[in-house]
Amino acid sequence: MQLKAKYIDMETAEYTCVLHVDDAREMGVREQDRVRIKHDRSSVVALVHTTDTIVQQGEVGILGRAYARLGPDKDEVIDVVATTRPAAVEFIKKKMAGKELSTAEIRTIVSDIADHTLSNIELTAYVTSLEINGMNIRETADLTMAMVETGEVIEFDRSPVFDFHSIGGCPGNKITLIVVPIVAAAGLLIPKTSSRAISSACGTADIVEVFADVDFDSNKLRSISESTGGALAWGGSMNLAPADDVIIRVEYPLGIDPHAQLLASVMSKKKAVGADFLAIDIPVGEGTKVKTMEKAQAFAKDFVELGELLNIHVEVAITYGDQPVGRAIGPALESREAIRILEGVPHPSSVIEKAAGMAGMVLEMGGIPNGEARARELLASGKALDKFREIVGAQGGNPDITSEDIKVGEFTYDVLSKTCGYVNGIRNRDLVRLARTAGSPKDKGAGVLLHKKKGNRVNTGEPLFTIYADNKAKLDRAINLSRSLSPIAVEGMILAKLPYVSKSTVIERTFCPVPSTHQEE
Amino acid sequence: MQLKAKYIDMETAEYTCVLHVDDAREMGVREQDRVRIKHDRSSVVALVHTTDTIVQQGEVGILGRAYARLGPDKDEVIDVVATTRPAAVEFIKKKMAGKELSTAEIRTIVSDIADHTLSNIELTAYVTSLEINGMNIRETADLTMAMVETGEVIEFDRSPVFDFHSIGGCPGNKITLIVVPIVAAAGLLIPKTSSRAISSACGTADIVEVFADVDFDSNKLRSISESTGGALAWGGSMNLAPADDVIIRVEYPLGIDPHAQLLASVMSKKKAVGADFLAIDIPVGEGTKVKTMEKAQAFAKDFVELGELLNIHVEVAITYGDQPVGRAIGPALESREAIRILEGVPHPSSVIEKAAGMAGMVLEMGGIPNGEARARELLASGKALDKFREIVGAQGGNPDITSEDIKVGEFTYDVLSKTCGYVNGIRNRDLVRLARTAGSPKDKGAGVLLHKKKGNRVNTGEPLFTIYADNKAKLDRAINLSRSLSPIAVEGMILAKLPYVSKSTVIERTFCPVPSTHQEE
Repeated sequence: MQLKAKYIDMETAEYTCVLHVDDAREMGVREQDRVRIKHDRSSVVALVHTTDTIVQQGEVGILGRAYARLGPDKDEVIDVVATTRPAAVEFIKKKMAGKELSTAEIRTIVSDIADHTLSNIELTAYVTSLEINGMNIRETADLTMAMVETGEVIEFDRSPVFDFHSIGGCPGNKITLIVVPIVAAAGLLIPKTSSRAISSACGTADIVEVFADVDFDSNKLRSISESTGGALAWGGSMNLAPADDVIIRVEYPLGIDPHAQLLASVMSKKKAVGADFLAIDIPVGEGTKVKTMEKAQAFAKDFVELGELLNIHVEVAITYGDQPVGRAIGPALESREAIRILEGVPHPSSVIEKAAGMAGMVLEMGGIPNGEARARELLASGKALDKFREIVGAQGGNPDITSEDIKVGEFTYDVLSKTCGYVNGIRNRDLVRLARTAGSPKDKGAGVLLHKKKGNRVNTGEPLFTIYADNKAKLDRAINLSRSLSPIAVEGMILAKLPYVSKSTVIERTFCPVPSTHQEE
Repeated sequence: MQLKAKYIDMETAEYTCVLHVDDAREMGVREQDRVRIKHDRSSVVALVHTTDTIVQQGEVGILGRAYARLGPDKDEVIDVVATTRPAAVEFIKKKMAGKELSTAEIRTIVSDIADHTLSNIELTAYVTSLEINGMNIRETADLTMAMVETGEVIEFDRSPVFDFHSIGGCPGNKITLIVVPIVAAAGLLIPKTSSRAISSACGTADIVEVFADVDFDSNKLRSISESTGGALAWGGSMNLAPADDVIIRVEYPLGIDPHAQLLASVMSKKKAVGADFLAIDIPVGEGTKVKTMEKAQAFAKDFVELGELLNIHVEVAITYGDQPVGRAIGPALESREAIRILEGVPHPSSVIEKAAGMAGMVLEMGGIPNGEARARELLASGKALDKFREIVGAQGGNPDITSEDIKVGEFTYDVLSKTCGYVNGIRNRDLVRLARTAGSPKDKGAGVLLHKKKGNRVNTGEPLFTIYADNKAKLDRAINLSRSLSPIAVEGMILAKLPYVSKSTVIERTFCPVPSTHQEE
């Protein structure tokens, strides 16, 4: 049908056009059908919205990018014809019917996703079908490879390539800043790419950005990694497994992350940088993605098996995730804590333990015996700190950086304990909400610093944690929120609940137990 | 956050606003999150799009209806705050996890659907979960009642109320035009509402519209039905079970219709008009919604059981759907065929047989013995025609209407048989495509008229069917399409396929069998 082109100043994820209901009926297309719009020698396939107000009969409204790509003059008459739905939709329906998909079918789906061809409705049908019906390991490997092949692949001048990944969900997990320099200081190549926060308090890329650039193309990642042996880059600035970013568009609003998609998402980014050896950290605990040890073990098994099919040697550490790693949550607070550890602060810490353990796993995969001990040596000798500074310098930061250089939020508020006893529970999610409300990850100085962790003794009026913010308004919002949350539970508080009689009523409200030895740090 | 309101001239199914990416990040909201926008005393909850071009930092773009509802002045500063996702999403995820939903949970989902609160992503997750995990009969009854309660309910001055429904999929099914007058002529109340075509060649409402109005509110439906005993109205103009129309928005682009949703969709429209007795027609055959007898029987059982829970007495007829009912497909062609039958054309016809059978079922539910014989009497005596004309008059049509008054498309083309033999297959879908390409259902005169049906003898060069259109261009398009389709298969044609030797090669290409007695009409 010949229609007058009209520009609509609006952008959507999909190429979109608007047809008058009567024209749409005439063409036999409905809302969410697709049409091909042709002008000169270019054409786009766009999803159809129908209207009886925005455009008149005889007009086609074309949104944002699609209009720019076609480039018609105002009111120029262009050709609009109905077209069929993408091939991927039939294969999505096959998965909906609970059937196994072939390699070619999975490739078609992923390539239509990566090309932005699928609508939100079609993408959601895919993700929901995957959430319910799953994929076997063969399908998951095909999914991973399809995601790799529809994006950029980076090759380094030497091999093997080592990599490390935490599936996340545990706040304060700044160990990447320590693992990468240790591994690189040991002479292994670890071109690490990380993500930014989606719903967490902050991602590794958000932390590194406090003191160095993270936004590189693949050439720059290659040169930094080849010269220093390591990198702390943001994966999002490269085009690695781009289908993943499209899929997140519908996973996020539903709060789901289908198992096969999660596996493929992790592994595709590693395969895209040519990883030969990969250490994976699966934090387990109430506030994390994986709640039980059984689930973590099943997850680990899937990663190892998938690695075999993809020719990546995978080792998994299941780690304690019932409370934050270390004490700091938020970009600047976490970088300061990590750099202090690299500088050799003497106190024991869950950060050191986890980082040395994970780095040790990587070193052993690289043929270095007693990996964890070697990792601790590299930390203690200052070689990891030297390597860290070298990487920071290569990424445009200060090559003489110290923890003193890190500026944390100037507006602070101490949350005090209303009772005394022991910390017997920390709610990761509440801490994440507080850190985000205070401005993290965008406001680099914002976050939460814990003074007490599980098993620590607390007196009434002692500070449990401090909220940091870069501005007063956000601090006030976080303070307000803190009044409705109890991120740190101190034993004894529940005694106040009446008329219900708890089993611990034998302990009096004012009873303060003596310090115990099971404090974490 | 305080933002300047900016109008965006675009409409979407959901209330939608556009935030600058930096403001969205500041508020902690992402694409597809929701915000509440407040102005004076009104407020709307809108889905968030993010942009770095359409609105600047400090602005909020508000689309179409949402802007109209709030009514801010240009650039007026209004308040935008993040809000949580609707409660329904958790229950949709419960169904995604394969769990049974409670009555209250189903009500929440349906009421959020009917209120247009759910996004396309959330709706698709619901429909896909229902397609895969299904609902038991108790859940389906709750779903039906929730759909009834979120819409209009019509009460008539007398009871019982009778109703009739075909689940469709078989073209040419104009029997409603005959069933309703027969039932009403027998003194029973049958306030029938019908649908328009979505993907079929034409719906009953599209047919009736050729000679009468169909677009009434519920008061008018009540007065027509109470005065004449029957009605032939379009259900879409009343607000019966409105959640259904919202759900179709995502069912259609995926080409799915989950079993529980289909059951609830049919039954909710009947319950909303207070039906006490309901006859259901399930056409079975390759080109229909239900392919096998086993599936049809399971379907029938579900309708009957669901009826018991809803206090509707349901009887089901499983009908032959391997070829069109009668010979005409398209609004005017079908009305002419139906009115000719009411006028008493003497030849045998699948239309008469099916209509008398279905009407007979309804009469027997109403306590009239030998229902089918009585239905045929009412047809033969002209009482059904009189009642039909009375209903047409009440619906603003000509109360003296005859089949001669119906104007069919003036542009026609005969498709001839290239061989001779018997018709051994008719492809409903090809006929529907031809009728739609010729202009049906919008162009009332467009459609297809069959000259040969299954078992009929055909000679080379004899017309198989005629394509009708209201304009030359569409006729040409349908003629073009007809060259790539074989909607009517004549035995003998496959003999031309070589070098493959078919089992029927004993029949020569020029062999024309003698007329058989198994012709349908």
